[in-house]
Amino acid sequence: MFTVGFVQFCPLRYQVEQNIAKLQTLLHGVQADLLVLPELANSGYLYAAPEDLAPYAEKGDGSGPFLSALRMLAAQMGGVIVAGFAEKSEKGLYNSAAAVGGEGVIQGYRKTHLFASEKDLFLPGDSGFQVFTHEGVRVGMMVCFDWFFPESARTLALRGAQVIAHPANLVLPYCQQAMVTRSLENAVFSVTANRYGVEDLPGKTLCFTGGSQLLDTKGNRLLQAPTEGDCVALHEIDPAAADDKVVAGRNHLFRDRRPAMYE
Amino acid sequence: MFTVGFVQFCPLRYQVEQNIAKLQTLLHGVQADLLVLPELANSGYLYAAPEDLAPYAEKGDGSGPFLSALRMLAAQMGGVIVAGFAEKSEKGLYNSAAAVGGEGVIQGYRKTHLFASEKDLFLPGDSGFQVFTHEGVRVGMMVCFDWFFPESARTLALRGAQVIAHPANLVLPYCQQAMVTRSLENAVFSVTANRYGVEDLPGKTLCFTGGSQLLDTKGNRLLQAPTEGDCVALHEIDPAAADDKVVAGRNHLFRDRRPAMYE
Repeated sequence: MFTVGFVQFCPLRYQVEQNIAKLQTLLHGVQADLLVLPELANSGYLYAAPEDLAPYAEKGDGSGPFLSALRMLAAQMGGVIVAGFAEKSEKGLYNSAAAVGGEGVIQGYRKTHLFASEKDLFLPGDSGFQVFTHEGVRVGMMVCFDWFFPESARTLALRGAQVIAHPANLVLPYCQQAMVTRSLENAVFSVTANRYGVEDLPGKTLCFTGGSQLLDTKGNRLLQAPTEGDCVALHEIDPAAADDKVVAGRNHLFRDRRPAMYE
Repeated sequence: MFTVGFVQFCPLRYQVEQNIAKLQTLLHGVQADLLVLPELANSGYLYAAPEDLAPYAEKGDGSGPFLSALRMLAAQMGGVIVAGFAEKSEKGLYNSAAAVGGEGVIQGYRKTHLFASEKDLFLPGDSGFQVFTHEGVRVGMMVCFDWFFPESARTLALRGAQVIAHPANLVLPYCQQAMVTRSLENAVFSVTANRYGVEDLPGKTLCFTGGSQLLDTKGNRLLQAPTEGDCVALHEIDPAAADDKVVAGRNHLFRDRRPAMYE
């Protein structure tokens, strides 16, 4: 068995150290194989321009304060942490996720489908949808609005992901229900780690929706957090359930696909 | 405005004439631009072998009793009827849908993804997902289990469908909710016309789930039938709403796709 879960919290803007301290508190004593944190968990979400966000972003190689702290937490936890973070590179900023173990960064992911004003802050992700293996379990990452495009989870599942780790900062009301379809249509587990709270800039207010969740391969909710409040939740799963792509005894969700019939 | 709806009923096996008579009764006085009927509305669903079903199947050209009757009904109704039917061809049987107007068959569709023991009765559909236009409104057809594959509705939407006409004989519990995601992710209207009732063969019993529905481009239910019982339901829609693919002001559901990142 494999223990998987999420951390729901409210990342503070401009306060990387406070966000790290909050996570250290929330993860104290937590033992898990895979734990998913929200999107932009180091920096918070709403910035007017890249230069405002840049001081709180860090490199994807694990050398910065946030990913370094996650490495320590992952070592204590005895597993892998997937977290969204603002990534700084030579080309510019990315809305990224990293899978971090006790030895450091295992894999990075740069958000493919940027949402709304994220387009003013970040470069479109260039990593593609990749799968890494931890303790024999295949995990793929996507970030927040990637959920809206069925191709995101589909690509991860076709590349072998048994569990989709999904850091999010959700403001639209649809995702928590739509992820039921994403898990079901691909027969994968999914962990959506959302934030809660409110952020504003002049003329703009965003309310994040919480409701972080873990879904099984039929889309059943194994865990769900409330719409507000810090929450660490864990559940044991059998990742091999995601290797069974057969529905109704005769249909294989992947082999029955007919790509020649699709756009 | 465009009046769209569904007919939910319980097709009887081996009773094409009774099914036609039932539809004539249900559609008496109905005026609509587009009306969707369940899958296999001429023949019923559960047959042990193609030769058992063949006597109740007919050609897709509109020359048989079922599609001929639909042509008359469509003329009276002043619109187009999309119905699932067992189709007979030189190669074998197809689980098909036809769009029928007062002048005859406008377009046929042969189910792409056959479900469970349908694989023993029907050939895999070779028509592909096509779109026809009626009164300037672009309509695409898919049949029942096609819903499970996100590529079906996606392909129809990318080919321009504003409304997805979805005849169904549903037995799994997932579709009515998953279609919310299908409408939302593609910003299309969808009409799932399901049947109700029970059919059995030795060692096998199927319970059909009713709950036919019309969804708008955000996945809101404009109509939903109960789980059992005959039901004709109509609603006015503005099909142009499906031409607005923009979410949150900055995201275009199609132009923001990044096919190079997908499998």
